[in-house]
Amino acid sequence: MTIISLMTDFGLKDGNVGVMKGIIWGICPEAQIADLSHTIQPQNVREAALILFRSAPYFPKDTVHVVVVDPGVGTARRPIATQIGPQRFVCPDNGVLTMVLEHAEKENWPVEIVHLDKPQYWLNEISHVFHGRDVFAPIAAYLASGVPLHVLGTPIHDPVKLALPKPQRTENGWRGEVIHIDHFGNVASNIRSEHLQQAQAEKSGIMVRACGAEIHGLVDTFGERPAGELVALLGSTGNLIVSVVNGSAAARLNAKVGDTFDAIFYRNRIADA
Amino acid sequence: MTIISLMTDFGLKDGNVGVMKGIIWGICPEAQIADLSHTIQPQNVREAALILFRSAPYFPKDTVHVVVVDPGVGTARRPIATQIGPQRFVCPDNGVLTMVLEHAEKENWPVEIVHLDKPQYWLNEISHVFHGRDVFAPIAAYLASGVPLHVLGTPIHDPVKLALPKPQRTENGWRGEVIHIDHFGNVASNIRSEHLQQAQAEKSGIMVRACGAEIHGLVDTFGERPAGELVALLGSTGNLIVSVVNGSAAARLNAKVGDTFDAIFYRNRIADA
Amino acid sequence: MTIISLMTDFGLKDGNVGVMKGIIWGICPEAQIADLSHTIQPQNVREAALILFRSAPYFPKDTVHVVVVDPGVGTARRPIATQIGPQRFVCPDNGVLTMVLEHAEKENWPVEIVHLDKPQYWLNEISHVFHGRDVFAPIAAYLASGVPLHVLGTPIHDPVKLALPKPQRTENGWRGEVIHIDHFGNVASNIRSEHLQQAQAEKSGIMVRACGAEIHGLVDTFGERPAGELVALLGSTGNLIVSVVNGSAAARLNAKVGDTFDAIFYRNRIADA
Repeated sequence: MTIISLMTDFGLKDGNVGVMKGIIWGICPEAQIADLSHTIQPQNVREAALILFRSAPYFPKDTVHVVVVDPGVGTARRPIATQIGPQRFVCPDNGVLTMVLEHAEKENWPVEIVHLDKPQYWLNEISHVFHGRDVFAPIAAYLASGVPLHVLGTPIHDPVKLALPKPQRTENGWRGEVIHIDHFGNVASNIRSEHLQQAQAEKSGIMVRACGAEIHGLVDTFGERPAGELVALLGSTGNLIVSVVNGSAAARLNAKVGDTFDAIFYRNRIADA
Repeated sequence: MTIISLMTDFGLKDGNVGVMKGIIWGICPEAQIADLSHTIQPQNVREAALILFRSAPYFPKDTVHVVVVDPGVGTARRPIATQIGPQRFVCPDNGVLTMVLEHAEKENWPVEIVHLDKPQYWLNEISHVFHGRDVFAPIAAYLASGVPLHVLGTPIHDPVKLALPKPQRTENGWRGEVIHIDHFGNVASNIRSEHLQQAQAEKSGIMVRACGAEIHGLVDTFGERPAGELVALLGSTGNLIVSVVNGSAAARLNAKVGDTFDAIFYRNRIADA
Repeated sequence: MTIISLMTDFGLKDGNVGVMKGIIWGICPEAQIADLSHTIQPQNVREAALILFRSAPYFPKDTVHVVVVDPGVGTARRPIATQIGPQRFVCPDNGVLTMVLEHAEKENWPVEIVHLDKPQYWLNEISHVFHGRDVFAPIAAYLASGVPLHVLGTPIHDPVKLALPKPQRTENGWRGEVIHIDHFGNVASNIRSEHLQQAQAEKSGIMVRACGAEIHGLVDTFGERPAGELVALLGSTGNLIVSVVNGSAAARLNAKVGDTFDAIFYRNRIADA
């Protein structure tokens, strides 16, 4: 089983993703290839980092995840390939692995990173502007075919990391920010289930204040409330989100990535009663 | 050969469809997976039902079709898996199989449906909001791997069915409605070739009246007429449609799903002459 | 290894691309299928021709490329299948192979084309409006399965060719036009690296004048310049393009396919100094 996932900001109209698959199958004909996303906002490394982090764990061991969101293509930024715990990644060294690396540190996973500096594993002709095709696709295919990481490049220990926003403890809760708006218009924050455990321990309630709205209490799922109601809940990967049942919270609240997002703990009214 | 098709309203930008493929390949590495559509209008079960009905018959026997358009995710609505004649389906029990089941009844096909109530065939952790990942993807993979339906759940006989609009016989034809607008802007009705056979038998002509337009006679295909002309014809799965040659009838007529769509039989003028 | 690529103007929402895959796997279960593009502008054969020409060479030998941009579907236009050098193509005979055929002539590649006139290799029922499903998908699957070209149709030698715009030599450079605008908003011309070699030989500089902008000199890649700067460079397949670093040149310049695009050679100022 040799599985490769692809994530890019290439869009789907110009044939570039298909070309990467052609190259991969030329080297590793049995590869199964899943598209993770090709509509990452152009050059938005942070968005790619988030989607990669929450998607990769659901893939089988040793899947090769290729990420090409690459504003520095053709400059001195390093192309890299890595084994991080059970998963492998091929990408430019621009911080797109930040969340994966932070998680590996917490889990004490082994991390191996190489700078891809062996052109014999790239296409013969290398453009300055499309390394997804010329470098990353062939490298992913060689990795999937069983070529060991150390053959493809030289070990490095200083991958670029992004300074990602972390939620801050406030007097009565957490202050985070909007980090993603999904296809349905759900507004996701960087406040996570872990942050809310204290409220549970204190038997207090939670109020979410975000983008001008205040929402008291969390629901478990959308269908608990009537269509059109604004609700707060934990999303499928544990982030605190705001949604409109069968609608778009992003449109309703005019929400944008970076907006302030507060979780406020208060004494549970029911308990008080 | 183990083929799985996927249809959702997840969109393509957030990685959720890729995650489902990762889970499927973890259980059934040899599965071939086709995307049927991931831009079903959010929560539009009826649109999914239509596309499923007209697409499934073209897949090989025993293909597993996964449909996740699931406004009731996390509530008491049942997850189900079915064998309906030559095809298999995995989806929430929300009526998305209505047209497939009606067809099976007409064809006298055997129908087997189970309520998916065996969590040992799901992911270990189940969210309240993403059963496509947590329930439907693993179930599809087990089915494709050869696990029999009855092992995955308990038989049921009362699947939810939608009350879909049917064309009504009028004095001189049929009154239907617009049920789909496709990527090209073709406007499709629920009036079908079967309904028009009477006109043929009576040697009468047909006029289509829809969205403010009147079109006399049917063409066989777009290229018979000059670009920009409004035409009526039978679409590729037998529905009566209105099109603009090399253009968008939906844009021209401002058509919407649910609009009235009439087929009117009249004495053929040529025969009259 | 049996690889098939698919390019259409069907869009991704209606299930039609998935249906083609279902049919292909029914005939050739082991086929690996890559989507090249399904958002070709409706009926835009020229756009499809360009993307096909620049993508096909990156696929393994004997890949079957299926192109269904087919304004003449159901009319007398011929369905064809071809072997052109190392690649195979299945499409309507409407000029979509023009650039591939011109390249084959230059390279002296063998070219074999058949008119697909053997209905026993199509679906049993043929609609007038969806030959992607009824004719081209099954033919591609038979080709990929090893059925020889001559079995599927009758040889022809007069494929339709489009009169594509060629750059014209001017007194001091080349006059071309905009032929593609990609997902990032890069504006690509039909002036190619070959055309610019003379400037290099003459040790002169290059100025690009397009869509109201003048750009002096070429960069190698985007990252050489600050975000927002307008630059000219050679794209990944050798065409002269205009870009905005981390932005959209098409939006900045309001560029459209067909706009005039000049490359002007001048005595290199540095050499002059």
